[in-house]
Amino acid sequence: MYTLQEIGELIEKNVAMLDLGLVPEEMHESVKYMLSMGGKRIRPTLCLASYSMFSDNIDEQIIMPALALEIFHTFTLIHDDIMDKADLRRGKPTLYRKWNTNIAILSGDVMSIKACGMLSQAPADKLAQVLNLFTDTATKVCEGQQFDMNYESAYAINMEEYMKMIGLKTAVLIACAAKMGAIIAGAGEKACDALYDFAYDMGVAFQIQDDYFDSFGNGNIFGKKIGGDILNNKKTWFLVESMIRAGGKDKEKLHYLLSLNEEKSEEKITGMQDLYIKLGVKDAANARILDYYKKALLHLNDSGLESSRTALLSDYAKKLFRRNS
Amino acid sequence: MYTLQEIGELIEKNVAMLDLGLVPEEMHESVKYMLSMGGKRIRPTLCLASYSMFSDNIDEQIIMPALALEIFHTFTLIHDDIMDKADLRRGKPTLYRKWNTNIAILSGDVMSIKACGMLSQAPADKLAQVLNLFTDTATKVCEGQQFDMNYESAYAINMEEYMKMIGLKTAVLIACAAKMGAIIAGAGEKACDALYDFAYDMGVAFQIQDDYFDSFGNGNIFGKKIGGDILNNKKTWFLVESMIRAGGKDKEKLHYLLSLNEEKSEEKITGMQDLYIKLGVKDAANARILDYYKKALLHLNDSGLESSRTALLSDYAKKLFRRNS
Repeated sequence: MYTLQEIGELIEKNVAMLDLGLVPEEMHESVKYMLSMGGKRIRPTLCLASYSMFSDNIDEQIIMPALALEIFHTFTLIHDDIMDKADLRRGKPTLYRKWNTNIAILSGDVMSIKACGMLSQAPADKLAQVLNLFTDTATKVCEGQQFDMNYESAYAINMEEYMKMIGLKTAVLIACAAKMGAIIAGAGEKACDALYDFAYDMGVAFQIQDDYFDSFGNGNIFGKKIGGDILNNKKTWFLVESMIRAGGKDKEKLHYLLSLNEEKSEEKITGMQDLYIKLGVKDAANARILDYYKKALLHLNDSGLESSRTALLSDYAKKLFRRNS
Repeated sequence: MYTLQEIGELIEKNVAMLDLGLVPEEMHESVKYMLSMGGKRIRPTLCLASYSMFSDNIDEQIIMPALALEIFHTFTLIHDDIMDKADLRRGKPTLYRKWNTNIAILSGDVMSIKACGMLSQAPADKLAQVLNLFTDTATKVCEGQQFDMNYESAYAINMEEYMKMIGLKTAVLIACAAKMGAIIAGAGEKACDALYDFAYDMGVAFQIQDDYFDSFGNGNIFGKKIGGDILNNKKTWFLVESMIRAGGKDKEKLHYLLSLNEEKSEEKITGMQDLYIKLGVKDAANARILDYYKKALLHLNDSGLESSRTALLSDYAKKLFRRNS
């Protein structure tokens, strides 16, 4: 069985070697720019870790589909940044800012297509299943982004709508990654489904953590501008939970902060941060992340797989959420 | 063997029945809007006609890949219209005009993904080949659009650059359609390649004809605003050929017209139309379209296939270019 470190090295080596063979120079350069930004590579890591629970033979049949997940995820970041008017991504200018919107649209388009093409390396007898899982998931990711956009201009959404949105936008692709690794390795349906459920809950925890970093992260580590979600009136876990909790003067304050435009961005961000703390939403978010993290691990325990095999995934979850148990 | 009419009816029936199952309402509506606009359905027609030369058994295994070509083509129109700032498509408001740019980006994204997913219906033993052909082609289409964008701000391009650009942007997808039909029907390599070459040259003729309609078409039939390419300084066959032919005062006039901005759009369009006629470019374009049309038919003759089988395709070419022979 591969270690997490070996898997990480394998991914970085293959991302660095990857040549999509794109001819127009700005397309080639912009794709390289995005892929060399780094990032946690969660999706290919989960795919390879999941595969490696069942097979030691890591070759092109699994490497290419694993990289396809990263390529697709990167495509979504490129197009999301256009829609969110985001300036920074992983501490660097976003693609549409560094080049322009048209190049960002096209480079994203080509990455989405290349991702599908890379799946063709999967074993022939699993290809249709892998392609269907991937394109169904990718469709959901686009749907989630559409809901996210719609909710920006909605005054309020409830927690159910929030959970559905982040399920589509974030959790399904992470879940798909874990399941795809298992499918390609030839695992049984029960194991494939347990890994999907594990990674889905991890994805939910991860998104709430991402929402956390938008308000309370360290900008240098987070790589995005702190408060970007706040400025866009994004319906994060924090805002949705605050809407539920706030009453009286807090509610008035919340409405006031939501009405502030770009000119008062500093007041808006610090005001929201204060309110999140005052309402206990910051602490509640940490508790929620822990809940989903534990729920994710339970799926591994219930999978019927030996814990010596699932350790790779539970270790990865621990590492991702900086937990000791 | 199916007739062209039967194939056309089959496509319209299946496009109308097609439910991509998209949940967000604006996504569902905007995709339906684009698909119900009609159009010539060249790509699925070529795919089915090509298939039907080798097999009479038209089922989901070929219908879905044929529709995937149309879905993908429609996606490219949606994103191209954003980049070209086009107001009209097939006589109706473009998607980003009717909804907005973000919805147009996302609806396009989801159509590109769905197109890849629909290929999974192809026979399992041909799926990898079909997926590779399709995604390689789709990549080229994006590359062609990137060149098209770049060339808008370039002062001049030569005929070789033009031919390469329209090859990527238009001809390869039409060629892929014909070849994919043959592959799925189980045709041999030689036949597949001959059909590819036939459709490639048809695609080139078709693009020059499209350039023709931009300058000299009937706006009601063309469905786009006449002179859209002229206003964007698009490097059409007409502009490229005019750059080669114009000297002295004509060259000065050409440079002057290219420098005119939106405020003088009428002067720019009529000036260019006059120049194209004066330089003999209009007549030369018709001759060029005929050249490529004939070249396309020669590939059919050289394919080693009986003319009774290829008649479906040559009839379709005749119909498309309104030729008698």
